[in-house]
Amino acid sequence: MYELTVRDHVMIAHSLPDAFFGPAARLHGATFVVEVTWSRPELDSHGVVIDIGAAATRLSEVLSDLNYRNLDEHPAFVGRFSTTEVVAGHICDRLIATMDLAGFTAVMVTLREHPDAWATCRVEL
Amino acid sequence: MYELTVRDHVMIAHSLPDAFFGPAARLHGATFVVEVTWSRPELDSHGVVIDIGAAATRLSEVLSDLNYRNLDEHPAFVGRFSTTEVVAGHICDRLIATMDLAGFTAVMVTLREHPDAWATCRVEL
Amino acid sequence: MYELTVRDHVMIAHSLPDAFFGPAARLHGATFVVEVTWSRPELDSHGVVIDIGAAATRLSEVLSDLNYRNLDEHPAFVGRFSTTEVVAGHICDRLIATMDLAGFTAVMVTLREHPDAWATCRVEL
Amino acid sequence: MYELTVRDHVMIAHSLPDAFFGPAARLHGATFVVEVTWSRPELDSHGVVIDIGAAATRLSEVLSDLNYRNLDEHPAFVGRFSTTEVVAGHICDRLIATMDLAGFTAVMVTLREHPDAWATCRVEL
Amino acid sequence: MYELTVRDHVMIAHSLPDAFFGPAARLHGATFVVEVTWSRPELDSHGVVIDIGAAATRLSEVLSDLNYRNLDEHPAFVGRFSTTEVVAGHICDRLIATMDLAGFTAVMVTLREHPDAWATCRVEL
Amino acid sequence: MYELTVRDHVMIAHSLPDAFFGPAARLHGATFVVEVTWSRPELDSHGVVIDIGAAATRLSEVLSDLNYRNLDEHPAFVGRFSTTEVVAGHICDRLIATMDLAGFTAVMVTLREHPDAWATCRVEL
Repeated sequence: MYELTVRDHVMIAHSLPDAFFGPAARLHGATFVVEVTWSRPELDSHGVVIDIGAAATRLSEVLSDLNYRNLDEHPAFVGRFSTTEVVAGHICDRLIATMDLAGFTAVMVTLREHPDAWATCRVEL
Repeated sequence: MYELTVRDHVMIAHSLPDAFFGPAARLHGATFVVEVTWSRPELDSHGVVIDIGAAATRLSEVLSDLNYRNLDEHPAFVGRFSTTEVVAGHICDRLIATMDLAGFTAVMVTLREHPDAWATCRVEL
Repeated sequence: MYELTVRDHVMIAHSLPDAFFGPAARLHGATFVVEVTWSRPELDSHGVVIDIGAAATRLSEVLSDLNYRNLDEHPAFVGRFSTTEVVAGHICDRLIATMDLAGFTAVMVTLREHPDAWATCRVEL
Repeated sequence: MYELTVRDHVMIAHSLPDAFFGPAARLHGATFVVEVTWSRPELDSHGVVIDIGAAATRLSEVLSDLNYRNLDEHPAFVGRFSTTEVVAGHICDRLIATMDLAGFTAVMVTLREHPDAWATCRVEL
Repeated sequence: MYELTVRDHVMIAHSLPDAFFGPAARLHGATFVVEVTWSRPELDSHGVVIDIGAAATRLSEVLSDLNYRNLDEHPAFVGRFSTTEVVAGHICDRLIATMDLAGFTAVMVTLREHPDAWATCRVEL
Repeated sequence: MYELTVRDHVMIAHSLPDAFFGPAARLHGATFVVEVTWSRPELDSHGVVIDIGAAATRLSEVLSDLNYRNLDEHPAFVGRFSTTEVVAGHICDRLIATMDLAGFTAVMVTLREHPDAWATCRVEL
């Protein structure tokens, strides 16, 4: 089994308006370092999982809709908390909705919110 | 599938008194950078795998019993070598013994002992 | 010459409302990983530049006033842009204003805003 | 389940002579940071997955055949592109061919080619 | 004093054809992770050392002339070894030759060639 | 001005037997990630500050006297606390005592004891 991962980042504002989240209920922000991994059982005819340049472009396009935004006003997060896990899931969903993933077996998105915490969403295809 | 990871560290002394371990048979020490990952098939009602603050507190409590200790004198390692793998397994065991893990499917503990070596214990629940 | 550095982080929202900053003019946010370095020509009687625990506590206290905040509403940044450099300078100022720095020759604060950009403020004492 | 990972690196030249790879079709090079992970269901009698020193030596031996080489002239890559994925697969193959892996359930090799891209080959044993 | 650093990378082939360099005399390659730091005594009217976006663009332009190249054939390195230090110095020179550095007091370029070695060129202006 | 840095690590046990150090007064240990930097105004005839291989060998030799040791029993630390700063200073001293540093202007040693704390000793030559 082979995997290819590319990394990028976004800088967003958001709040998590519920006492459950303690001080994170207030409007604050995060640099999310985003890693996306594609999995395939075998390499394609060029010897790759996915072209690194194409993968980076794909990720950048999905992130451009989030970057320098206040997620409290983003339609994707209406009615739910934009936790690290939820944003990871959203990026996963967007990648799956906009790519031809024939031949791939999984997509995985990891968001690192600070050096000591990160979340992952993994979808088997 | 979703995962949440928090990171912390401990600074311990120990020896691995067997010729198998070469110079590590002598009393020496390590900074173990510890990462714990919890896995769930779906997020909970707050949109999280586990609250990051609660996860960090839980890890810190388990590590406080090891931190600034000589593991050669720690009851958890009587009769066995406190290798990186064994310490990872011990932390995994303590987390499982002291948390309500209903709804989780796996717990994973990684210990990084220096920039070029690390060990993981993963328990499916 | 000796130096001691401790690291922590804050998660903040802010905007940089000027066309100069491009999309960063919008309300967004950042995880600032913060490193503070203290310099001395010689070590003190305990063989340290500054006690690591005391240094970490001092940094945490200064950061608590910024963490999970919208810097657009913070009094320290009224009338100026809360750029990475300005926030680094503010943290430097607060450390200098609240510590007895007799015997130290410099304080330096580095803020990493994402993996590919960081800023430093260094004050010679 | 337990895993042990060791890390090393190689510095190689190569080209990927196909328009698919854009500018990487030209002769260029890479520092590949290489991580190898061995998996076992249980630890051995010394409390390890594999001795870290032995693992590091094994990896270093496999890498010595690639280090400071032009992969375009290396027999392992005749007739195929030496992409990051293919080199990861080659290292995996060499480890499997030259080690006694009785008791292990998987070997995984990750090659990091720059801070924002890496590839993995994982073989279940 | 304030500093701003941006980071990027290049992937190059080269050889260091002298017995002094041991196996690095052969044609091989490197991923150079490149960090450039600009220093100023005070911030400008926007509260920055230099705009991060402008800095990143400037660095990318200088690196584009090296990226995916065999430095043995690059005119900048005729008659000298393209060591990590020399490449750092070349990037420093190019930045100084192509930027208006009025108000800046230093430019510094660090090249990381693998996790355990890096070189810096610093020019006081 | 040019600098060259190499990195290595040691794993040691020690105690800091004074109430000043809190729980670190107990026997514990650390992985010290060690970075040594050499500075020169100009490069030598091979275009280097110091050969990376020679630098790494030199550092490894100095560290071999500390690695897998209990610093409480090491003659270099009799009558003083083996704090991170003191160990950095000791490594600096040993490098200066055992190398021909003609042409160099400074040697700097940084010890990282965990991800959030490190110390540096810098000696101008």
